Amino acid sequence: MVEVREDEAAVALPERVDAGVYFIGVIRTPWTSRADCPKQGDPVNGPVCRIELDGRWAEALTGIEPPCGLLALYYMHEARRDLVLQRPRGARASLGTFALRSPVRPNPIALAKVHVLAREGTTLHVRGLDCLDGTPLLDLKPERCPNAAPRP
Amino acid sequence: MVEVREDEAAVALPERVDAGVYFIGVIRTPWTSRADCPKQGDPVNGPVCRIELDGRWAEALTGIEPPCGLLALYYMHEARRDLVLQRPRGARASLGTFALRSPVRPNPIALAKVHVLAREGTTLHVRGLDCLDGTPLLDLKPERCPNAAPRP
Repeated sequence: MVEVREDEAAVALPERVDAGVYFIGVIRTPWTSRADCPKQGDPVNGPVCRIELDGRWAEALTGIEPPCGLLALYYMHEARRDLVLQRPRGARASLGTFALRSPVRPNPIALAKVHVLAREGTTLHVRGLDCLDGTPLLDLKPERCPNAAPRP
Repeated sequence: MVEVREDEAAVALPERVDAGVYFIGVIRTPWTSRADCPKQGDPVNGPVCRIELDGRWAEALTGIEPPCGLLALYYMHEARRDLVLQRPRGARASLGTFALRSPVRPNPIALAKVHVLAREGTTLHVRGLDCLDGTPLLDLKPERCPNAAPRP
């Protein structure tokens, strides 16, 4: 097990995984180290990044007509998966993993709302990403009507 | 390969998966067949469902204080994964998988915004789910500031 800081906690991971995912493409961004990545993507002013979908899935883009919004799901392949308590950089106290958007989580799946500017073949040009260059793509979904939880 | 309708298209799946996911809990809902499931969860008026997290991950809930909103990611374990063009029930034309919210997709990962009413140990009582009873849980994330894509 990798080292854990005093105010963090790790658990033993399950002995085996329960299902498998396919990497269906790759995300190209300007960021090559985690320290460079923005905390949150900006679909208005962020840099234009590329989502390069594998040719196998080309027909699955049918009906996506930029400009439009999409949700991108991707796999944070460099993150450890065993921390249950974490203290984010700059935070005074640690929090549970499910109260954080940290890439460190049992299943390192992230999502971003992106604004699709253009499509060339199976490449989408988008703003709104925040991940490392080379991050594997898992899914693309249309946005739908806001489904906001009530604010108590 | 399972049968494909005339206006749908399937591809050969990759020979192997690229990464594994852990099922970290189970979702309990009133719906036992896909035909029963609502098209979209309702975090205000939908039925109260349960997210039962495995004990291993209990500390990862630290800091989640109901009532609050959360994003739940789950694995649609009964869905086929090879369709790239689909015609949803009642739709006149088929669309690409990535233009649809159908559970049938290369990686059958769904997300729902839920409203957490209460927590008992590692069980969360929530509204806003739309999935089958017994659906495996993949992740919980806090909502954060709206990150809306511009509407062109």
